[in-house]
Amino acid sequence: MESIAFDFSNMMVEQLGEEQGIRREEINAMAARGRAIVQSVQNHRHGDGLRWFDLPYQKETLAEVKALARQMAGRYHNCVVIGIGGSALGAIALRSALLHPWHNQLPDEKRPGPRLFVLDNVDPDWLSGFFDVVAPEESCFNVISKSGSTAETISQFLLFRQALRERLGDHYIKQMIVTTDAKGGSLRPLVRRETFRSFVVPEGVGGRFSVLSPVGLFPTAVAGIDVDALLAGAARADQETRHEEIWQNRALLYAVLQWLSYRRGKRISVMMPYSQALRDVAAWYRQLLAESLAKRKNRAGEDVFVGQTPVKALGVTDQHSQMQLYIDGPFDKVVTFLRVGSFHKELTIPPWQTGQSAVDYLGGHSFNELLQAEGDATTIALTEAGRANASFILPELNAYTVGQLLYTLEVATAYSGELYDINAFDQPGVEAGKVATYALLGRAGYENRRQEIETARRRATRFAV
Amino acid sequence: MESIAFDFSNMMVEQLGEEQGIRREEINAMAARGRAIVQSVQNHRHGDGLRWFDLPYQKETLAEVKALARQMAGRYHNCVVIGIGGSALGAIALRSALLHPWHNQLPDEKRPGPRLFVLDNVDPDWLSGFFDVVAPEESCFNVISKSGSTAETISQFLLFRQALRERLGDHYIKQMIVTTDAKGGSLRPLVRRETFRSFVVPEGVGGRFSVLSPVGLFPTAVAGIDVDALLAGAARADQETRHEEIWQNRALLYAVLQWLSYRRGKRISVMMPYSQALRDVAAWYRQLLAESLAKRKNRAGEDVFVGQTPVKALGVTDQHSQMQLYIDGPFDKVVTFLRVGSFHKELTIPPWQTGQSAVDYLGGHSFNELLQAEGDATTIALTEAGRANASFILPELNAYTVGQLLYTLEVATAYSGELYDINAFDQPGVEAGKVATYALLGRAGYENRRQEIETARRRATRFAV
Repeated sequence: MESIAFDFSNMMVEQLGEEQGIRREEINAMAARGRAIVQSVQNHRHGDGLRWFDLPYQKETLAEVKALARQMAGRYHNCVVIGIGGSALGAIALRSALLHPWHNQLPDEKRPGPRLFVLDNVDPDWLSGFFDVVAPEESCFNVISKSGSTAETISQFLLFRQALRERLGDHYIKQMIVTTDAKGGSLRPLVRRETFRSFVVPEGVGGRFSVLSPVGLFPTAVAGIDVDALLAGAARADQETRHEEIWQNRALLYAVLQWLSYRRGKRISVMMPYSQALRDVAAWYRQLLAESLAKRKNRAGEDVFVGQTPVKALGVTDQHSQMQLYIDGPFDKVVTFLRVGSFHKELTIPPWQTGQSAVDYLGGHSFNELLQAEGDATTIALTEAGRANASFILPELNAYTVGQLLYTLEVATAYSGELYDINAFDQPGVEAGKVATYALLGRAGYENRRQEIETARRRATRFAV
Repeated sequence: MESIAFDFSNMMVEQLGEEQGIRREEINAMAARGRAIVQSVQNHRHGDGLRWFDLPYQKETLAEVKALARQMAGRYHNCVVIGIGGSALGAIALRSALLHPWHNQLPDEKRPGPRLFVLDNVDPDWLSGFFDVVAPEESCFNVISKSGSTAETISQFLLFRQALRERLGDHYIKQMIVTTDAKGGSLRPLVRRETFRSFVVPEGVGGRFSVLSPVGLFPTAVAGIDVDALLAGAARADQETRHEEIWQNRALLYAVLQWLSYRRGKRISVMMPYSQALRDVAAWYRQLLAESLAKRKNRAGEDVFVGQTPVKALGVTDQHSQMQLYIDGPFDKVVTFLRVGSFHKELTIPPWQTGQSAVDYLGGHSFNELLQAEGDATTIALTEAGRANASFILPELNAYTVGQLLYTLEVATAYSGELYDINAFDQPGVEAGKVATYALLGRAGYENRRQEIETARRRATRFAV
């Protein structure tokens, strides 16, 4: 079984030139620190925030996930995830990467498993409209929230619970599976009392690191994804990213190269898959990077306001949207391509000799060649313009290679936290917004905050046109 | 009929504080320059690159678009756009904004018009899979390329032309509508010879400014969008954005505020709709901003490497992904919210008194209230953290208000080009990538470049793990 690879030639001075390139010596100079980081993180892998390291080895949970998934897939046309952020992005990424590219729109007779929907917003038009395409009684719902206090998720839980009860009475219980904390939070007591079937969001695993827990595994297993191979790939990546030698460890190298780039003013980290299927891996990584590494304070408690801004792009599509900026704009970006060695299908461009030179050369090539040529061409153009870029290469697109990729990026994020000297596993910045939402909706205990907000609104000078 | 509004209170020193806020005096100081910019741009609105200014008034073209759209909508189940970049993003934005939120997945009996697909990538798996969900013989295809040399579009043109011919013989011609240059390029000669029906990409209108030309209008009219109201909204915005007084002109104000922010180090411009329907307006704007305003050279020919990086985000979804970064990360962003006053549907959160305080307060509220409270809460949290933000407000979501918004953003982009002193209507940076693609695919005339690339590859030092 093949391994993913990480090619960072175009980050280095040899390709990128003196001004923008990184020198071997700079990487060598990080060798000791890199070794210390690997040791430190790996020695704490059973600690809080880091327990996702062991998700590839959860045999019992995996068996339970697969058993219930088989049952649900046999009974229902649809699997609907009710979750947001880390409770949604993993399933979305795996769906795009590993199911038929038009899975949800396939006619029933061509679709190997249930349709998979992830409802990660509360837009009333969008949710109302959902009932026009999915019959709740033909669907199982996976409600995912560790704390059980996520307003978006709980609201939808209430919505679909009622929709099911209206149609099925108390039998509705069988169609809702709740993934939440083992003991605490607001949902576990309801699981017990109402006898929902449930999975556990493991202790010490934050939402953005939960894709390989039941959070990501269960709904994607229902839809037909090979979760065994996914975890096997992750396990392989675990072995490979423990290596203490910097030049041998692609997670550590990726972390160090991104960090060196950030220190040189490359505040923006673009992830650009040349694969329609991998577009949502970039969306998943966007959360992982932003929430983990953007922090106001370092570990000493000093204000640092650090953090690369992740940007998701898509090859070839965004060549016609963002490439002008990446080539000619400020030198504030580093681009990470995701490349696929060989695609599942070979699709030929039919020849037509029209007498138009811009048309005639294409016939006889394949779309595979075209996509690869465009990816290569973009890499060449960026590099010649002095723009730092690197590539993760998946020899082919399957659960085993995607498992490697996701896990490698998670490990790289943990190592990056050490380089930035910040806590990569909290997200203190989102608290203020949650509190203001509670206050505005009149949740008990938030009356003073509501008063404050109303006073501030009255006093505000409004500028509008 | 109601107007959109632009609220920039949270850009100003009164809300944002001394350190991050902009002063009234700074805007007043731009009044004379602003007036000169409006005059200069408006006086050249019939010139090259700017002729999209008059698209709201194209009566004859509009009648032709609607007539053919009606015909196609009556005959086919699907409308498939073959185009990329500016030939795709307008239709995608309008589809999301103005059709049923699950339009393409609605059962035939519930769907008021054909399904609308936009194939803006060349991924072989994705394109192969498309044949599993769409029967070419039941579809009309709109091939869009001004030059007729866009490799991605031409390849797909060849693919679907053959698919149709295999099924329909020469009758296939009736199902392909070509939107291209009036005279030049590679497609116009084929239109004439093969007698495809066609529309014109108007002279002096770049792809990213073409949404209100037949490029964006025809496919969306087929799917059932009210293109009259769209243009009426744009015409209104045209009147309003000609105002020479800076405080009265929301396009000019938006341009000036963004430019002042950029000069203070806010290199990143986030557009964050609190509306699932507007998510692809942010994707459309992302191209408009990046290609128009990211430039290596100013008009004097000096290297400046300017350009904000656009980022698309989505409320409430990205509160659980990017908000940590926006609140606690570097002060390098300005956020533009898109807010909707009232949604089409009112959707109640059903009450359930569970004894859990994190659950019980939600029942009886509506998803509309929840979405608005979260949008307000995010705005408050950002502002209190000193993070610049502003909002475009659409009183409701319809073709008239969306037409206003798109046109206003286009005008703002033209005005911004003057502030940056760059040419907002070219995209020289993408040429190198195109040439490299031609070279790699063996297009005649690019043999030397191919040789160069091969030599460089042989000599390259590879760093990979």
